[in-house]
Amino acid sequence: MHPILTVGSVAFDSLKTPFGERSRIVGGAATYFSVAASFFTDVRLVAVVGEDFGETEMEVFGGRRVDLAGLQRVDGETFRWKGEYSSDLNSRETIYTHLNVFESFQPTLPESYRPTPFVFLANIHPALQLDVLDQVEAPRFVASDTMNFWIEGTPDELRKVLTRVDALVINDEEARQLSGEANLVKAARAIQGMGPKLLIIKRGEYGVLMTREEGFFAAPAMPLEDVADPTGAGDTFAGGFMGYLASADEVTEAVVIRAIIAGSALASFAVEDFGLDRLLRLTPEELQSRFDYFKRLTHFEAL
Amino acid sequence: MHPILTVGSVAFDSLKTPFGERSRIVGGAATYFSVAASFFTDVRLVAVVGEDFGETEMEVFGGRRVDLAGLQRVDGETFRWKGEYSSDLNSRETIYTHLNVFESFQPTLPESYRPTPFVFLANIHPALQLDVLDQVEAPRFVASDTMNFWIEGTPDELRKVLTRVDALVINDEEARQLSGEANLVKAARAIQGMGPKLLIIKRGEYGVLMTREEGFFAAPAMPLEDVADPTGAGDTFAGGFMGYLASADEVTEAVVIRAIIAGSALASFAVEDFGLDRLLRLTPEELQSRFDYFKRLTHFEAL
Repeated sequence: MHPILTVGSVAFDSLKTPFGERSRIVGGAATYFSVAASFFTDVRLVAVVGEDFGETEMEVFGGRRVDLAGLQRVDGETFRWKGEYSSDLNSRETIYTHLNVFESFQPTLPESYRPTPFVFLANIHPALQLDVLDQVEAPRFVASDTMNFWIEGTPDELRKVLTRVDALVINDEEARQLSGEANLVKAARAIQGMGPKLLIIKRGEYGVLMTREEGFFAAPAMPLEDVADPTGAGDTFAGGFMGYLASADEVTEAVVIRAIIAGSALASFAVEDFGLDRLLRLTPEELQSRFDYFKRLTHFEAL
Repeated sequence: MHPILTVGSVAFDSLKTPFGERSRIVGGAATYFSVAASFFTDVRLVAVVGEDFGETEMEVFGGRRVDLAGLQRVDGETFRWKGEYSSDLNSRETIYTHLNVFESFQPTLPESYRPTPFVFLANIHPALQLDVLDQVEAPRFVASDTMNFWIEGTPDELRKVLTRVDALVINDEEARQLSGEANLVKAARAIQGMGPKLLIIKRGEYGVLMTREEGFFAAPAMPLEDVADPTGAGDTFAGGFMGYLASADEVTEAVVIRAIIAGSALASFAVEDFGLDRLLRLTPEELQSRFDYFKRLTHFEAL
């Protein structure tokens, strides 16, 4: 088992879905990632919050394997995001994004974080991703996420990140945008040419596609009757994926594939309730039972 | 191994995709279905063509296990459809649909067809589906397809069909429309309440969902680099599915699941070229190799 380091947003989210509303709940990519990954291994969090992020908010990390030595608390307000989902949950509108303390964030890794072998660069400015990566001594496996905003706005810095990551975890639209290819097979090949040998494409309710030596691995998502709130599903997937990977002795193709199922299972729980609520009350027994469900979901005898 | 009977359209298609155009090529739901199913079992075709459907066109059935005793040839023109696909192949516009000889089609089953144990009612007027079903002596397993046109236009007759089928094979949009439920889990349950115990939902490039006693079975589609023409993919899936099912001794859940893979594999070939071209030159070895690919596509060791 190896520890994992992540850098990304810790935030206050306000959101509205067809099933309800929540104001100022704890969210952020690095938060979802850390809580999910901590089911499998020790997590070292690099992020920044403001003075408004108090003890109550810190409780989401309480009793978990999340090291907070790298979580800076500075003057000002915590990152805030507000979004509203469409009636079928397939699209969302951002009402506002206030970077606040993230605007001047300069990540400095605690000495104890530097030798971390597994690194996940969540969706933040690629310059910050590079900055953090530079401070890690000899990373063994690095994965990153990104979004349309950086693909369009900071393509050169993003390309630099891509030359240094082993795996890129993005959604299908981002893969198309980054590669300029409408077809996902072609998009995957083009992105692999930019650096990441392993590409993991998130397709929301349709699951995940992963590139492999020969062809692909595909994990369907679990068909869910009640999705309360899709916020953080992708980051939860990434957390489960990287956490499982770091918990293994070696990164083999079979382990990567099981890690995808681990991420898919955690994400399927995350969306069942608002914010982090479902993950925070998730038991290891429930998680194991969903791993079993995922096996039944796709397995068949050879024809 | 059991023979299978199908009723549906045999047609002339004209189509345009981003990769080319074809005029007046042989198509139709029952044609794709029959060619696909004939890889696994004997097919008995019930359909009608006009005088313009000659020996050359008949060649698509040549040397296959397709019984044409129920294929009527009457005065007039064969059913014609013309369609044009969007640049990403995700939608298509129908330029015209000329029912022609189908307008007055009265299916009469040859005596030899009556005891057929497996029946597939392809997408035609539900009254015709019922008419054919009434002429089968003691069907053991009946499946049907339908479309938005019948869901809206002939709901009562469609409901009658549904009370008499074991399986319904439709796409996700049709499932939502038929049930009035946006969520597919709820849609599936509502449709099962209308009759078919087994619901198979086609999701195009995302594969297939199947209801089962506990939860679902999900088969992702094969990620394809070059899709020349999606026409007939759904009917090819249904043909592979029902053909495989009929070729087995018993209809168990494990067999139904393998049948879904058989259908998915055949459909993945069908779209690689225009019309029936790829299916017509498909070898058993290629098909077996794709079954193996589908196994690698989704299988993983238990977590």
